[in-house]
Amino acid sequence: MKIGVYGLGRFGSFFSSLLSKGGAEVVAASRNAHSAPEGVEIRPLEEVLSSDYLFFAVSISSFEGVLKTLSPMIPESTVVLDTCSVKVYPAKWMKENLPSHYKIATHPMFGPDSARDGLSGLPFVLSPLEEKNEKYEAIKEYLSSFGFKMLEMSVREHDKEAAYSQGITHFVGRTLEEMKMEPTEIATNGYKMLMKIVGETCNDSLELFYDLQRYNPYAKEMRLSLQVAIEKVLNRLQSKEDL
Amino acid sequence: MKIGVYGLGRFGSFFSSLLSKGGAEVVAASRNAHSAPEGVEIRPLEEVLSSDYLFFAVSISSFEGVLKTLSPMIPESTVVLDTCSVKVYPAKWMKENLPSHYKIATHPMFGPDSARDGLSGLPFVLSPLEEKNEKYEAIKEYLSSFGFKMLEMSVREHDKEAAYSQGITHFVGRTLEEMKMEPTEIATNGYKMLMKIVGETCNDSLELFYDLQRYNPYAKEMRLSLQVAIEKVLNRLQSKEDL
Repeated sequence: MKIGVYGLGRFGSFFSSLLSKGGAEVVAASRNAHSAPEGVEIRPLEEVLSSDYLFFAVSISSFEGVLKTLSPMIPESTVVLDTCSVKVYPAKWMKENLPSHYKIATHPMFGPDSARDGLSGLPFVLSPLEEKNEKYEAIKEYLSSFGFKMLEMSVREHDKEAAYSQGITHFVGRTLEEMKMEPTEIATNGYKMLMKIVGETCNDSLELFYDLQRYNPYAKEMRLSLQVAIEKVLNRLQSKEDL
Repeated sequence: MKIGVYGLGRFGSFFSSLLSKGGAEVVAASRNAHSAPEGVEIRPLEEVLSSDYLFFAVSISSFEGVLKTLSPMIPESTVVLDTCSVKVYPAKWMKENLPSHYKIATHPMFGPDSARDGLSGLPFVLSPLEEKNEKYEAIKEYLSSFGFKMLEMSVREHDKEAAYSQGITHFVGRTLEEMKMEPTEIATNGYKMLMKIVGETCNDSLELFYDLQRYNPYAKEMRLSLQVAIEKVLNRLQSKEDL
């Protein structure tokens, strides 16, 4: 099995190197010059796009443009997969730009930080965009071999659940970062966990944060719910203080 | 050493039982009928108040009233300690109601949930309200024997640091609880930590939450900073969406 990865940013470098550890040949290309991640060969764009499976590891906001540019160069025999943290829009863009290809929308729900303690049980979402076939089962089996928790769901199901889990976590992390929270000697366990959330979410790019909020059709509703919840807690507190 | 604990709610039961494990005789009394925690003897109020050391384990909002009622019954030889999660007001109430006693404001910064994985390194704040003496050193040494991280600081230092650590953690926990966050198969590690924070903070009483916010002189400023931070993040997101 030959796997191509397009995009060697923080996630692409980590993910391509990880994929190489399961026995497949992994080749990569990127818009910008990058050194090859461990186990990965940097190859000419044409070769990478012609792999059996081609993962795009680019930012959500650049994905549509990248697809428009590269889709004419991707042979129809190549299975195309994205790895974006939202799924409704990327799936739509793949359908529009690669109508004849076998396509799978995916979300590996981890990164270099959260994978540090092992891969076992980390969620890996697959949203097949076509009838399942042998090619689908083969890549699913390959990914399963790493110990990920493979989850199949529709792109809408994914985005709704993700807005109220990953999306809110990043929102809380960025908000607390804005407050410049500091470590303290009297940190409770809860506060230490909160600081860890801030550290991990803010270690991801700011672009990912904005993309998670802008390109998830359920994120706005999530943020509104959060604002309403804060108002409720503050109002209840106010009524206690007035006593 | 004989230690008395007044108050056998969730924290008092846990704390008195824990104190008995270091070799001291621990006796307890409570306004309401309670079964004796492991290692602790329920004794008449007079006896408990006459212990060498008397810890109050009552809610912040009831502490002043409890002191007014019980202080005439506490012999001057008894060292009086509170365990409230805020320190400025409780210290003031102890000074007003027990002018001649040796008093120590304390904050054991853990509870039945956070102590489940061991006591080592859990912060235990001591704010001596008098010149340090042998009685002070003796109880400090006894508490140290459990492995707590003993920290000495003024009541103001404590409240400022606590508002921006424990206080904000509880505020975030209660707000997310209000949103009725659910476990999900696609939970990231960050979201799992967030759910754990919600679980632990909301396992404490609602009274503790309100008291932490109302009786900490720095909590209002902390909540305002949080609101300002959310506004900033939302505004920045809005400006991205307008592009």
